Amino acid sequence: MRRVAFQTLYDEFYCALTAVGFSDQRAALCAKLFAENQRDGVYSHGLNRFPGFVESMKQKKVDFSASPEKVKSLGALEQWDGKGGVGLINAHACMQRAIELAQQHGMGGVGLKNTNHWMRAGAYALQAADNNCIGICWTNTTPLMPPWGSAEKKIGNNPVAFAIPRDRGHILLDMAMSQYSNGKLEVLRRQGQQLPLPGGYDNQGKLTQNPGDILESRRALPIGYWKGSGLALMLDMIATVVSGGQSTHQIGNQGTEHSVSQVFIAFDTTKLMGQNVLNETIDTIIQDFHTAAPLDEGKSVRYPGEGMLRSRKESLEKGVLVDEEQWKELLNMYKE
Amino acid sequence: MRRVAFQTLYDEFYCALTAVGFSDQRAALCAKLFAENQRDGVYSHGLNRFPGFVESMKQKKVDFSASPEKVKSLGALEQWDGKGGVGLINAHACMQRAIELAQQHGMGGVGLKNTNHWMRAGAYALQAADNNCIGICWTNTTPLMPPWGSAEKKIGNNPVAFAIPRDRGHILLDMAMSQYSNGKLEVLRRQGQQLPLPGGYDNQGKLTQNPGDILESRRALPIGYWKGSGLALMLDMIATVVSGGQSTHQIGNQGTEHSVSQVFIAFDTTKLMGQNVLNETIDTIIQDFHTAAPLDEGKSVRYPGEGMLRSRKESLEKGVLVDEEQWKELLNMYKE
Repeated sequence: MRRVAFQTLYDEFYCALTAVGFSDQRAALCAKLFAENQRDGVYSHGLNRFPGFVESMKQKKVDFSASPEKVKSLGALEQWDGKGGVGLINAHACMQRAIELAQQHGMGGVGLKNTNHWMRAGAYALQAADNNCIGICWTNTTPLMPPWGSAEKKIGNNPVAFAIPRDRGHILLDMAMSQYSNGKLEVLRRQGQQLPLPGGYDNQGKLTQNPGDILESRRALPIGYWKGSGLALMLDMIATVVSGGQSTHQIGNQGTEHSVSQVFIAFDTTKLMGQNVLNETIDTIIQDFHTAAPLDEGKSVRYPGEGMLRSRKESLEKGVLVDEEQWKELLNMYKE
Repeated sequence: MRRVAFQTLYDEFYCALTAVGFSDQRAALCAKLFAENQRDGVYSHGLNRFPGFVESMKQKKVDFSASPEKVKSLGALEQWDGKGGVGLINAHACMQRAIELAQQHGMGGVGLKNTNHWMRAGAYALQAADNNCIGICWTNTTPLMPPWGSAEKKIGNNPVAFAIPRDRGHILLDMAMSQYSNGKLEVLRRQGQQLPLPGGYDNQGKLTQNPGDILESRRALPIGYWKGSGLALMLDMIATVVSGGQSTHQIGNQGTEHSVSQVFIAFDTTKLMGQNVLNETIDTIIQDFHTAAPLDEGKSVRYPGEGMLRSRKESLEKGVLVDEEQWKELLNMYKE
C-alpha cells in the first residue's frame, strides 16, 4: 500500500477515461466519483473496480455517450430512462434532479431504469447532503443471495444509502442487504483475512467467517436473517415500480448485470429546519450517542459515516491509500 | 386460545373505547386498527396492548380528544404536530395526508411530531396500499437497544414498514431494528418459548435465545449487528429532522415514552404504472421468488406479508384467534 495525492489520483482516473473516449465533462465526473470513493476509504468501489469499469466501456457493454432522459413527470416524482449509459453519470444526474424537485416541492424523487452499476451507493446520498438535502437512494442488482429459507440465489443485495447534511461532515449509512457486500468479501479474501462475524454459508451449508468460502458457495447471509431477505425483495419491488424498470429476476435472466433499476429521494432540509438548527440537532444527537460506554476499551462507539470522515481527513492530509499493484495498473492503463 | 368473529372483536374494542370517552368516529378508527392487527396475526400489537392503551387514556397520559395540526407545508412534504394525541389517530391522519399529497404530486411525505405509540407500523403502510400507493413509514422510540459496540441503551428499535398494493393481497414488510421486537419477546416469554435464533445478550454478556433474559438485560440485538444499529440511528435522525420533533435521546430523557416523531411517505402507483401493470409486475416477481427451493422440506420460502395474508384469511373464515384471558379482560373492561 502507498499514498498518492487526491489530485494525482483524480488526474490518473481522468486521463484513463478520456483515453477510452469519455468527453471532458463525463471523464471529470467519473474520475471525481472514483477518486472520492477511494479517498473515503471505500476500497471496494474505488481503484479496484476501475479496470473492470473501463473494460466494460471498451467492450461497448455500456454506452458511455448515452444521456438519461425523462420519461414521465408526476410533479415531485419523475421516471427517467438511463438508456444503458454509464451508471455513475446516470445516478448523479437523477440525484441532482431529485434535489431540484426537493427544492421545489420539499421532497423529490426519481425512479431510474435501464442504468448500470453506480459503484458506491453512498456517493449519491452524499451528493444530496452536499446540497443541503437528506438523501436516500437504492439500487437493485442481479440475484446475489438466497432468500431466507432457501439456498438458491434469488434476491439482490440491493445496496441502500442514507445521508444527512452537517457542516462538520455528513452522516452516511451505506449498506447492502447482505451482511457483507461482495466487494468487501473480495477485498478480505485478497488480503487473506477472516470476517469478524459469520457472513454466510460454505458449500456444506455451515455458517462461516471465511470470505472465500462464501464467494464460492454464493450464499451470503442477509442482515438480520429473514428481515434483510424481506427488505432486499421489498427494495427491488419498489425500485421496479417507481422506475418502471427491470426487477432482480429479470436482470438475472440477462446473464450479466446491466439495465438495473434505482430510486433517488431527497428532502430539502433548508426549508424543513434551516442549516443552523439542523447542525445543532444532529450534533446533539451525536453527542448523546457518543456517551454510550464502549464494550471494548480503546474502541469508541461510532455513528454511520464516522469512519469515512476519518479516512477522508487522513487521505486529504497524508494522501489517499492505494494498493501498489492497482495503482501501477491505473498508471499503465492509458499508456498501452 | 379461542376464536371470535372479527365483527365481535371490533364491537368490543369499540364499546371499551366509547366507555372511556372516545367519540364515535375515533372509537371506530381505533377499534378497527386494533381488531385488524389481531386479525392479521400481529398478536404483539393487538388485544395484548389494548388494556395498556385504555389505561393511558384513563390516566390522561394521552390526550384522546387532540387532533393533529399542520405546522408547515413545503408542497409535497408537510410537517404536522400530533399535539400529544392518540398515536393511532395521528398516524392514520398523517398517512392519509401523505396519500393525498402523492395523488397530487406523485409522491407525498408527512413528518409528524409530538405523537404517541401507533401500535403496528404495518397498519399505516397497508393504509397507503389500500389507496393504491406504495407506503413507507417509520417511528422513533425511547432508547431500547445498545448501539453496536456498547452495552448501554442509546438507540430506539424504530420500526419501519413498507407496503406495495396488490389486488390479491398487499406485500408488507414491517420490522423493528432489533432482531426481535420487544412485543415479540414478551409474547414468547409469556408462551414459555425460546427464540429460533439468538436475539440479544443475557446479563452475563452472552448471546442468547431466551426472550426473558433479553428483556431483563435490555440488550436486544440489532439486525445485521452494526448495520441495524446504524439504520436505527439514521431513521431516528431523519424522523427528527423531517418532523421537527424529538429524537430518541430526548424521548428517553422524559422517563416514559411519549411525544415521538414519525415519517409517512406515499408513492402513487396509479400514475406510475396503473393497477393492471402493477399487479402483473408484482405477481411475476413473487412467482419467480416462489420457485426458490426451500431448505426445509414442507416449508416454502415466504415473501414479506405472506404469513399475514394467510392469518387474515383464516381469521375471517374461522374467527380471529384471541388469548382466553385477554379476551375476558376486554369483555370486562367497560362493565366495571
